[in-house]
Amino acid sequence: MSTLSDSRFLRALACQSVDRPPLWVMRQAGRYLPEYLELRRQTPDFMTFCRTPELAMEATLQPLRRFPLDAAIIFSDILTIPDAMGTKVRFAPGEGPIIDDPANSEKRIKQLITPDVEDTLGYVAKAISATRAAMPADIPLIGFAGSPWTVACYQVEGGSSKLFFTIKKMAYDAPKLLHELLRKITAVTIDYLCMQIQAGANAIMLFDSWGGVLSPECYDAFSLPYLKTITQALKEKHPDIPVTAFSKQAHHAYSKLANIGVQGIGVDWMIDLRDVRAQVGPDVALQGNLDPAVILTTPEIVSEHAHRMLDQIASKPGYIANLGHGIDKHTPIENMHALVEAVQSHDYS
Amino acid sequence: MSTLSDSRFLRALACQSVDRPPLWVMRQAGRYLPEYLELRRQTPDFMTFCRTPELAMEATLQPLRRFPLDAAIIFSDILTIPDAMGTKVRFAPGEGPIIDDPANSEKRIKQLITPDVEDTLGYVAKAISATRAAMPADIPLIGFAGSPWTVACYQVEGGSSKLFFTIKKMAYDAPKLLHELLRKITAVTIDYLCMQIQAGANAIMLFDSWGGVLSPECYDAFSLPYLKTITQALKEKHPDIPVTAFSKQAHHAYSKLANIGVQGIGVDWMIDLRDVRAQVGPDVALQGNLDPAVILTTPEIVSEHAHRMLDQIASKPGYIANLGHGIDKHTPIENMHALVEAVQSHDYS
Repeated sequence: MSTLSDSRFLRALACQSVDRPPLWVMRQAGRYLPEYLELRRQTPDFMTFCRTPELAMEATLQPLRRFPLDAAIIFSDILTIPDAMGTKVRFAPGEGPIIDDPANSEKRIKQLITPDVEDTLGYVAKAISATRAAMPADIPLIGFAGSPWTVACYQVEGGSSKLFFTIKKMAYDAPKLLHELLRKITAVTIDYLCMQIQAGANAIMLFDSWGGVLSPECYDAFSLPYLKTITQALKEKHPDIPVTAFSKQAHHAYSKLANIGVQGIGVDWMIDLRDVRAQVGPDVALQGNLDPAVILTTPEIVSEHAHRMLDQIASKPGYIANLGHGIDKHTPIENMHALVEAVQSHDYS
Repeated sequence: MSTLSDSRFLRALACQSVDRPPLWVMRQAGRYLPEYLELRRQTPDFMTFCRTPELAMEATLQPLRRFPLDAAIIFSDILTIPDAMGTKVRFAPGEGPIIDDPANSEKRIKQLITPDVEDTLGYVAKAISATRAAMPADIPLIGFAGSPWTVACYQVEGGSSKLFFTIKKMAYDAPKLLHELLRKITAVTIDYLCMQIQAGANAIMLFDSWGGVLSPECYDAFSLPYLKTITQALKEKHPDIPVTAFSKQAHHAYSKLANIGVQGIGVDWMIDLRDVRAQVGPDVALQGNLDPAVILTTPEIVSEHAHRMLDQIASKPGYIANLGHGIDKHTPIENMHALVEAVQSHDYS
């Protein structure tokens, strides 16, 4: 019987040899799947959906039933943490996440709580342990959190933003206050991820979705150190659990990320994987980076571009096939099949 | 009497020595100026404002009256071209530009016209000639257009977009059609910029605001060649007029841009100017790249960060001080003064 130690995903993260690169897809559980949409029709409120372990488990397992993927990622959201800290999150249809009372002042930031994660976010642990028990033994389950910088972006801006001027202004004119917020988020995130690991998560992913909006200097001050703190804390407590960090569009950051102790680095589609490999050396795994627009087209085009991506990097160890960003809700199912087929049939010699 | 040949801006673009780097600021004419807001109150419709040469001239001159800037840029918009091609543009308050009938099908793209620029966009030429006549003789006036890729983004998506999936899907599954659109825009853009130069523009800027959303491969296919075609056509017809290209957040593109014949390259705030210089060599001017969030803070912080930017690059020729993106409407006037003062007082030895 296969076990996790045979897992392509974990072997690739350790830069060990694999028969072919593992494949999973960011947001593989979600809105492009009719069975997910059906599930959501029954529980339209997104945060309620996230807070219901049976639903999170079912959504996590759905893509595994359709596609022979090499990892699952627990269905949840990076905004569970701000919600638990007192910046309550709601999802307005077609609008994305909204925090009605953002933490954009000293008073509001000081009011934020450092919650007991078992009490407030235990629903994620329950979802993970149930899902882990229901999954094939040799397929890893990925737990995740947002990076402190990215979580703070939502907390301070009150949702997503085009320019992130409120929090970026704070980075320049109230750096101590912003660091206080980031330290709070970091502490909760470490507890949260340890809870996820204890519940059964086999790998951790840190989504720094908005790391790329910072200048290199601000990234080095406000995002990278907190990614490092989390990575080091997890390494100390759970040395066998690999961590992948994904600072989207922070193209100055790859060699810095390679030096904070992560096993994997996520790569968006706006850079050539070979350039990233040249920057980070051979000892860290790279994950990505098919343009999510490719998978909106046709199976033939998906296959062509997937093979081209694999030609660039996949003959050497330390590579995990994925998109460069989350899969879009308009993705045709047959195009996911074409991606799987391309990864399975590629000539890796 | 000073003449244009003494202009710091034109000398810096030619990588000639200057007493200090020239300074201008993207969107220096606009919403952070109370006198501009007053002018707009009288003509709230943005396209009408752009189409009225007296108003465009007045808006262009306003920042020069307040600040000793080293260049002006004609007040206009990159969407004048799509408007003239038949994809009519309107600006909804608080929403940005909207094209109600986007060019997102073969039928619509084939319907687009290649207008006579004198007939349809002559208002821009009138604004330029009037402004040029009213400006100090030694201050250059910059003309501009969007890059064909960026203009096509608006035409195909029907406005701005978060993910640009409609046009990016077209890049993958209907590349010939997209190239047809880009060729049409390119032809109009060349005519349009030649008209601007004949009317008195002393330098040209190409804003490729959305070049960075493309994969490197797609950028090389759908943005770079059209920037090159325009640059080469201008070089042939107007060899003395320098061209600057700004592909925002296309951090793989600097050395490619340095090889298409431009004199200047715009740089956003998300990369270190020294890294860009190392990529492009000494023979092309760099323009940028203060984080536009910095200038929202205080004069002291603006000064500190401006000096830090100047320390990085400004002691060598071929540098133009600017922000890394357009100035925000919430920028305090005194912070613009602080930026000017920093550039004037910096120790360039």
